[in-house]
Amino acid sequence: MTVKIGLLGFGTVASGVPFLLTENAEKIKQAAQDDIQVAKVLVKDDAEKERLLAAGHKYHYVTSIDDILSDNEIVIVVELMGRIEPAKTFITRALQAKKHVVTANKDLLAIHGRELGAIAKENGVALYYEAAVAGGIPILRTLANSFASDKITRVLGVLNGTSNFMMTKMVDEGWTYEKALQTAQELGYAESDPTNDVEGIDAAYKAVILSQFAFGMTIDFDQVSHKGISSITPEDVTVAQELGYVIKLVGDIQETASGISAEVSPTFLPKNHPLASVNGVMNAVFVESIGIGQSMFYGPGAGQKPTAASVTADIIRIVRRLKDKTIGKDFNEFTRPLQLATAEDVKSDYYFSILTPDVQGKMLRLAEIFNEQAISFKQILQQPSDEKEARLVIVTHSMSKTQLENISKQLEAAHEFQVMNIFKVLGD
Amino acid sequence: MTVKIGLLGFGTVASGVPFLLTENAEKIKQAAQDDIQVAKVLVKDDAEKERLLAAGHKYHYVTSIDDILSDNEIVIVVELMGRIEPAKTFITRALQAKKHVVTANKDLLAIHGRELGAIAKENGVALYYEAAVAGGIPILRTLANSFASDKITRVLGVLNGTSNFMMTKMVDEGWTYEKALQTAQELGYAESDPTNDVEGIDAAYKAVILSQFAFGMTIDFDQVSHKGISSITPEDVTVAQELGYVIKLVGDIQETASGISAEVSPTFLPKNHPLASVNGVMNAVFVESIGIGQSMFYGPGAGQKPTAASVTADIIRIVRRLKDKTIGKDFNEFTRPLQLATAEDVKSDYYFSILTPDVQGKMLRLAEIFNEQAISFKQILQQPSDEKEARLVIVTHSMSKTQLENISKQLEAAHEFQVMNIFKVLGD
Repeated sequence: MTVKIGLLGFGTVASGVPFLLTENAEKIKQAAQDDIQVAKVLVKDDAEKERLLAAGHKYHYVTSIDDILSDNEIVIVVELMGRIEPAKTFITRALQAKKHVVTANKDLLAIHGRELGAIAKENGVALYYEAAVAGGIPILRTLANSFASDKITRVLGVLNGTSNFMMTKMVDEGWTYEKALQTAQELGYAESDPTNDVEGIDAAYKAVILSQFAFGMTIDFDQVSHKGISSITPEDVTVAQELGYVIKLVGDIQETASGISAEVSPTFLPKNHPLASVNGVMNAVFVESIGIGQSMFYGPGAGQKPTAASVTADIIRIVRRLKDKTIGKDFNEFTRPLQLATAEDVKSDYYFSILTPDVQGKMLRLAEIFNEQAISFKQILQQPSDEKEARLVIVTHSMSKTQLENISKQLEAAHEFQVMNIFKVLGD
Repeated sequence: MTVKIGLLGFGTVASGVPFLLTENAEKIKQAAQDDIQVAKVLVKDDAEKERLLAAGHKYHYVTSIDDILSDNEIVIVVELMGRIEPAKTFITRALQAKKHVVTANKDLLAIHGRELGAIAKENGVALYYEAAVAGGIPILRTLANSFASDKITRVLGVLNGTSNFMMTKMVDEGWTYEKALQTAQELGYAESDPTNDVEGIDAAYKAVILSQFAFGMTIDFDQVSHKGISSITPEDVTVAQELGYVIKLVGDIQETASGISAEVSPTFLPKNHPLASVNGVMNAVFVESIGIGQSMFYGPGAGQKPTAASVTADIIRIVRRLKDKTIGKDFNEFTRPLQLATAEDVKSDYYFSILTPDVQGKMLRLAEIFNEQAISFKQILQQPSDEKEARLVIVTHSMSKTQLENISKQLEAAHEFQVMNIFKVLGD
């Protein structure tokens, strides 16, 4: 039998799907046990259709979603348009038309995943999206299957290739944020508006999805705090190296006694931490669990073929489940009621970079502020900034988010201190 | 419903299984959809039974396999005794009694895996063994499922924790092989007879199993060449570092135009290669493929809880498949006829460490030997060894196994050269 699929959109990733279906036909046939054929491709207009045909992509193009939804031979709809609309409407209608859906749309899944999952369930069809988190890394299926026996306590991830490329250049080459961004834009890694990548929004979308698979809890996007890399200075990078750390933008989801917390923030990683060697546009997800202990899944976070490989693995899984008559199982079956961690329970070491007039007694005053919150120092470094000012760098021992907030307020109130940056520090 | 399992053996790993079943009951129930209960445990004799009961392990112990095989309530047999016999006989009889089997026994699977797989198939039961390769890393299921869409071209792995612990000490601390081995034995990482670990035999077993999942080909254990770490000297380690490499014992399976080749050997890894940072007893499997490109799966290679987590994931999968009525699917469905690569097709850069009398013309003669085989040098380093001898270190450009063999013979024939070591060098 041949299973027919409809592609929504034919951009870079989409064109990787037929490439893999052809290039790897023998193996895919063994896994899927049926042939898979791209029956129709939805494009924007006739101009796009003509352009694609001229480029040698010989498919049956349609310009209305109805041509795919009303085609009873099409069993699987693969959405690769991106963004929220019209993708959300098209996926909803496809699920309601009892078609299985594969998508790589992380923005959509992070914000409307629960709703779309419910629609899929109602209609007894599959909604798979392995490619939505860390494109080429098969992390979601691994969390759902191989970690079924294990209790995950923390997930740390380098989840955004663009910002990781920039951080790698800032660390290895000493580039400024501005130079790194400009180069990322020139190389096509960053968009002209880089906000989603550099401010941690894209990584926060992925943290929402990872929370569901790793902890069984659907956290709202708004409940994932995110802080980007734009405030990181070459001084921060240098002092991090001196103290034995590498700075990266890290997504961090952990379960505490009171519940889970998720955030994306620039993080000091000890140099020997496996995530510290994840460089350039590569991504990695580091998992801490009571069974396996520490494990890491590393690979490309984006790109045509890596993303297409994940999308195609989802398609194969659906085709096989149709054959086995087990379709309709949720992609992620692990669910618990959401419980958010209290601020007292979320703890970490922190790095403070503080400018202060180079006068007597400043260290005493600073020590008093930290002492009042019962926070002790792990590492202190004083550097002359210019003749009148000094830069104090402090790495603390563990403190809670509550203590962090109190300290921040105190430092703000004490007008002799100018807080340049506060970053999370991962312990050894 | 409750699915009953029988454990064969109750050593360290086996005791981790009930730990996880209890500790993680809620999540396991969601994944398996039935309860799982350890019904009987096979032990050697009454003395072991008494010892385990006294230690607080309250199970129904039996000393004859028949008590488990004839128990119609036991659906899954979990073999964690290790070694070939009696494990092979017990697993065979369990499969013939239509019981599903989970095992972590890599020696057995590497040597008799095909035979046992056929018996499982004949009897319509499952034989799962995720824990057999890189204990805590869910690599086999990932290769079978997530790489179904992808064509793998090469698998490189740090597959043996004991030898990797030793190599890490030899590289980071400058220890000799002897000191590293003694410490590994003191820490319980290495057995009193360390042959399997240090000579690459254990890693070769794992390479056999990885070949099946990654390339669909069952290579015989005898067809995997293996070379251990015992000949590596502190001089090799130092010069590797000077040239920008880290030496590790690496399993390497690749597909060439003529077929696949698999070997385990000390390998120079470029410092920035993801495998180069895999230290201590940790394992990692690095995969190159046409879709994803480069990916790596990192975690503990052994240990009670990591191995138990993989074993328990297999048990859960069987229980769920029973519920879904899809049991009997092969663990690995990807099969192709075995084709071995010709020696001409297996190519690599190589490192040569050669002692020679410190006389005029030696470099000329050496250059002639390599030139006759059309091999060019990438890096050359000459170090005085003592007053009369010099140590020449050469890193070549790519050469085939045929060329390597010819060069080795020539060097042996030329009595002025004493070849100390030849190791594979991974290109950037």
